[in-house]
Amino acid sequence: MRYPFLKTFSFALILLVCCHCKNPEPETSTKEEPPSPAKELQPNRYNVAFLIMDGVYNTEFTAPYDIFQHTQYRDSIKAMNTFTVANTRHPVTSFEGSRFLPDFDYTQDSIPPIDIFVVPSAEHHLDTDLEDEVMLSFVKKVDQNALYITSHCDGAFVLAKAGLLDSVVSTTFPSDIEKYRKMFPKLAVKDSVLFVHDGKYITSAGGAKSFEAALYLCETLYGKRIAESLAKGLVIDWDIETVPHLVIQ
Amino acid sequence: MRYPFLKTFSFALILLVCCHCKNPEPETSTKEEPPSPAKELQPNRYNVAFLIMDGVYNTEFTAPYDIFQHTQYRDSIKAMNTFTVANTRHPVTSFEGSRFLPDFDYTQDSIPPIDIFVVPSAEHHLDTDLEDEVMLSFVKKVDQNALYITSHCDGAFVLAKAGLLDSVVSTTFPSDIEKYRKMFPKLAVKDSVLFVHDGKYITSAGGAKSFEAALYLCETLYGKRIAESLAKGLVIDWDIETVPHLVIQ
Repeated sequence: MRYPFLKTFSFALILLVCCHCKNPEPETSTKEEPPSPAKELQPNRYNVAFLIMDGVYNTEFTAPYDIFQHTQYRDSIKAMNTFTVANTRHPVTSFEGSRFLPDFDYTQDSIPPIDIFVVPSAEHHLDTDLEDEVMLSFVKKVDQNALYITSHCDGAFVLAKAGLLDSVVSTTFPSDIEKYRKMFPKLAVKDSVLFVHDGKYITSAGGAKSFEAALYLCETLYGKRIAESLAKGLVIDWDIETVPHLVIQ
Repeated sequence: MRYPFLKTFSFALILLVCCHCKNPEPETSTKEEPPSPAKELQPNRYNVAFLIMDGVYNTEFTAPYDIFQHTQYRDSIKAMNTFTVANTRHPVTSFEGSRFLPDFDYTQDSIPPIDIFVVPSAEHHLDTDLEDEVMLSFVKKVDQNALYITSHCDGAFVLAKAGLLDSVVSTTFPSDIEKYRKMFPKLAVKDSVLFVHDGKYITSAGGAKSFEAALYLCETLYGKRIAESLAKGLVIDWDIETVPHLVIQ
């Protein structure tokens, strides 16, 4: 052939035209992408994961989140990476109607090693959430390696259902403590305290008192001075001696 | 024409083929749509708007939000619709790194009449946010008709910059009170209190004490019993007599 490149050129041209004419792929893959990328975490920090879901209570999520995240602004300590885990990366709607974008989807994403796991209360922690086997399996899995597992308010129902509290003393939201005793009759339950620390489990009464349990953990990890400083940043007078709590060594 | 339907059929066929072959419009319009619809509000309630922006502090947003939103679960009162306003409906990232979807964009949406306006603190409330003329204009506009204007922590800097606090006593975050006095030397400033209520303005020290200012407003609107009940739901022992505050009648 005199002009062999012509054949190649013609073929390329045909291919180009075909490709150009072809309807672009429907953008389903883009649409199905979760709206938020997984959070980048800093090394040499504690990884603190918050389990959120539809119906999560704002305060029980944000109170410990703020205490722990603010460790990043204190010098000379091993600070905390804070991030949320959910069964989606699409927005989660809190009980109060706020919409949060989760950082990691525990059903799909590679989840970083979790040192401290926080379970805030959610609307259905006494009923349908306790039937969520995927969520409960995730909680059990996290429990295997976490240094601390904490709950706020009815978050204790999730830990109890997952069998994590079988051999420790725990507490929950004051108005739900009788339901808690009834649902988990074998558990050792303590009432009239803001939190219980037994083994690696810290269960808190929750609500606005979620700050106290988080500050206690910071005092345990970093000492009194840092805990006082974190408290001051949130206009809290911190003295663990004035906080009704139970620590089982 | 013997088969007039043939002409119609052919035309329809050509149209169909053309439509089918045509590249779909790039989906820019869909992509540019804000990701969240404006919230639907219930009638016969107070409309309570929270001004959020990048850098907003979680707790100062969620603490009053929760107290006010929970009024919806108390009988026989004029409860509160709670919603967020921002200069976007795309996600806003809090100081702590949480991502919230705002309910209304005050630069674009039709904003419902606002009865109670809440300004939580944000990271740049002492600097760049005070240069945001669009935001400050919005604050001034809301002030014209709102029944109450409240701030938490450094939110007072925004109200002061907008000129709303010129003739009232106000307070702010304890660690920023000297900067506040310096930046707004003509203002009457009160320190060592958790909040000041003067006229329709309630300025709060913020942080975890943001609950107290919100409960005070609920006690003012609904009475002591409802305030106690809202407090109990968040594990707070509520007694206004024990809260350092200043009310100017």
